[in-house]
Amino acid sequence: MDRSYALEIQARIDNKTKPVGALGLLEKVALELALIQSQDKPTAVESIEIRKPTMLVFAGDHGIAEEGVSIAPSAVTQQMVANFLSGGAAINCFCDLNQIEFKVIDCGMLSSIETLVPDFKAHPNLIEKRLGNGTANFAKQTAMSLEQVALGLEYGAKVAEHSILNGSNLLMFGEMGIGNTSSASALLTALSPLEVDHCVGYGTGITQAQLNHKIKLVAQGVSRCRGLGIKETLAQVGGFEIVQMVGAFLEATRLKTPVLVDGFIVSVAAYVATLLDEEARDYMLFAHNSEENGHKFVLECLQAEPLLDLGLRLGEGTGAALALSLVKAAAQFYNNMASFESAGVTV
Amino acid sequence: MDRSYALEIQARIDNKTKPVGALGLLEKVALELALIQSQDKPTAVESIEIRKPTMLVFAGDHGIAEEGVSIAPSAVTQQMVANFLSGGAAINCFCDLNQIEFKVIDCGMLSSIETLVPDFKAHPNLIEKRLGNGTANFAKQTAMSLEQVALGLEYGAKVAEHSILNGSNLLMFGEMGIGNTSSASALLTALSPLEVDHCVGYGTGITQAQLNHKIKLVAQGVSRCRGLGIKETLAQVGGFEIVQMVGAFLEATRLKTPVLVDGFIVSVAAYVATLLDEEARDYMLFAHNSEENGHKFVLECLQAEPLLDLGLRLGEGTGAALALSLVKAAAQFYNNMASFESAGVTV
Repeated sequence: MDRSYALEIQARIDNKTKPVGALGLLEKVALELALIQSQDKPTAVESIEIRKPTMLVFAGDHGIAEEGVSIAPSAVTQQMVANFLSGGAAINCFCDLNQIEFKVIDCGMLSSIETLVPDFKAHPNLIEKRLGNGTANFAKQTAMSLEQVALGLEYGAKVAEHSILNGSNLLMFGEMGIGNTSSASALLTALSPLEVDHCVGYGTGITQAQLNHKIKLVAQGVSRCRGLGIKETLAQVGGFEIVQMVGAFLEATRLKTPVLVDGFIVSVAAYVATLLDEEARDYMLFAHNSEENGHKFVLECLQAEPLLDLGLRLGEGTGAALALSLVKAAAQFYNNMASFESAGVTV
Repeated sequence: MDRSYALEIQARIDNKTKPVGALGLLEKVALELALIQSQDKPTAVESIEIRKPTMLVFAGDHGIAEEGVSIAPSAVTQQMVANFLSGGAAINCFCDLNQIEFKVIDCGMLSSIETLVPDFKAHPNLIEKRLGNGTANFAKQTAMSLEQVALGLEYGAKVAEHSILNGSNLLMFGEMGIGNTSSASALLTALSPLEVDHCVGYGTGITQAQLNHKIKLVAQGVSRCRGLGIKETLAQVGGFEIVQMVGAFLEATRLKTPVLVDGFIVSVAAYVATLLDEEARDYMLFAHNSEENGHKFVLECLQAEPLLDLGLRLGEGTGAALALSLVKAAAQFYNNMASFESAGVTV
C-alpha cells in the first residue's frame, strides 16, 4: 500500500480539538481507513466513507468433529445456519443494530440447507458455494484435495468481489463450523513458529480432557504438513470455510477494500492470506481479542491491536459486528470534528 | 437493589442460542440492565428498553490550574464548552453517531459562556448551574465552601432528575475542566486507602517534571483532609463539576436509573457517590479503562469491569458515548436472540 499520505492524514488527526493521541486506537483506525481510501486518489481524503458494511459468514463442516473435540455435534452447523437465516442468532442482532448487510455462505456443510429447511434454499441471505459434504477428518487423512483448495479460494474471491461490486467498501467475515477451531489451530501450528499447545484452546467450552485429546489430534494433522507449501497445508488440515475466507481476504486486498477481522478462526484465515500476499495485512483492521487460546498469538503474528476485549468466544463474526460501531466512530471524528483553528481553541 | 430476579434473568440469557457465557461482558451488562428494569415489576423483564440515552457533560474550572499542572490553561474549559455547543468536539461526533441526547452543564467555569460567545447564553444544550467562577486553588486553601458542596449536590440531582423526567432511562456523565484530574486524584487519595502516586497521572499529557509537581500539590491538598467527612473532603479538594456529578449519581440511584460511567474523573465522582450511598454502585455500568494512572485503581475500588480499553484519555464522556453501542448490543441480544428451543438447535 502506498503510505505517502500518512503524514498528511496524521496531521489532520492531530489538528482535531483534542490532545494528540487522546482518542487512542480510534486514531489508528482513522489513519488506516483514510490511507486505504486515499489510494488512487490525488490527495489524502478529507472524509472517510463507510458504505454498505457487509458481514459474510462462511459455514462449513469438519471431519475432525467426529473425534468429540467440540461441545456440539456437526448437525449444529446447519441448525445455526438456519438460525442465521431466520434472523435469531447473536450475529443477526448485532448486524441489525449496526446496519450491516448480512450473508451466509454454505462452503460445504454436511448437507445443504434445504435438507433441514426446504424453504431456505432460495433465501436471499444464503450463498451456496459448496466444496463438498464437510471435510475429511484431518487427524487421520488429508482434509480436502488441492482442487478443492483452489476452488475454495476462487469461491471466496467471488463472494468478496460480489459484495464489493454491490457497493460495500468495508467487509467483515465470520464463521460457523463445528470443529473449526481444531482446523484453525492446526493451520496456525503448521504455518507459524508457534507450538501446538499455544495454538489449541477450549473452543466454545470443552473440558481439560477434551483439550488434551484435541492437542494430540491437531499435532497428528500438523505432522503431515512438514515441508509443505501453504496451499498443500490448507489441503491437509484446512476447512472449507477457512479456505474461502483466505480467498476472500486476497480478493479484498486486490480490490483495496478493508476487512474488519473477527476472532480466532477468521484471524487464522487472515494470517494465511498474508502468507500468500503480504499486502493483505494493509487492508485488515482487527475487531477483538477473543478468549480462544491461540488468538493472542495469531494477533501477535499479524502485529494486530484489536479494538475490543469483551471476553467473547462465540464466532459468527460477532466481534467484528460489534467493533463496527467503533470503526464508524473513527470515521465520524475524522470527518466531523473541528480543528483547533475552526473551533477557536488556543492549545 | 432487589436481586431476586437474577436467576430468572440469567436463565433467559443462558438459553439464548450460544454457548453459556460466550458473549462475555455483554452478558453481564444485560443481566444488570434487566435487573434494574425489573425493579418494581412483578417479574423479570422480557425485554430491556433503552430510551433517550442522555449525555450530561459537567464543566467547571479549578484554581489548581494556576500551578501549571495541565497541558492547557483554564481558558480552554470555556473554549471547549463553546466547541461542544457548536457541535465540533469528539463528544458531539460520538453522541451524533449513537443517537445520544447531549447537554453541557456550566457548573462554574471562570466566566459564563456568553463572555466568549454571547449567542450561546440561550443555547438549548446548555444548562447553567454555576457555583462560582472556578474553585480556589486547593493546594493552598479550601477549594469551595460547604454551602457550595451542598448546592452542587442539589444542582447535580436536579440535572439528572430533569433528564429522567424528560424520558431518559440511561444516563452518561462526562466532564470538562482544566485541572480536574488533580482534583479527582486528591479526592481519590483522601477517600480511599490508595497512595497519592497511584492516584495522580499525566492527565491529557504533562511531562514527568509536571507530574512530580502535581503529586506534591495533590498531597498538600490531601493533607488537610485527614479525619474529615466526605462532604468536607469535597469542599477541601473537590471541583464544581465533580460535586455536581456526585449529586447526579445519587439522584440516578434514587430514581433507579443506570449510569454508564466514563473515565477517571467521572469514576472518582462515582466512587464518592458510593461512599454517600452504597446502593449507587448497583446502578452503574462502566464504559472504559482510560490511560489515566488512577483509573484502574478507582475501578478496582468500585469492583468494575469496563467495556472498552481503547487507550482514550480525552474525557468529555467520550468513552461512555462509545460504549453505549455495546450496551445497546447487550439489550439487542437479550431482547431478540432466539432460544435453543425456538431455533431448533439441539445443544
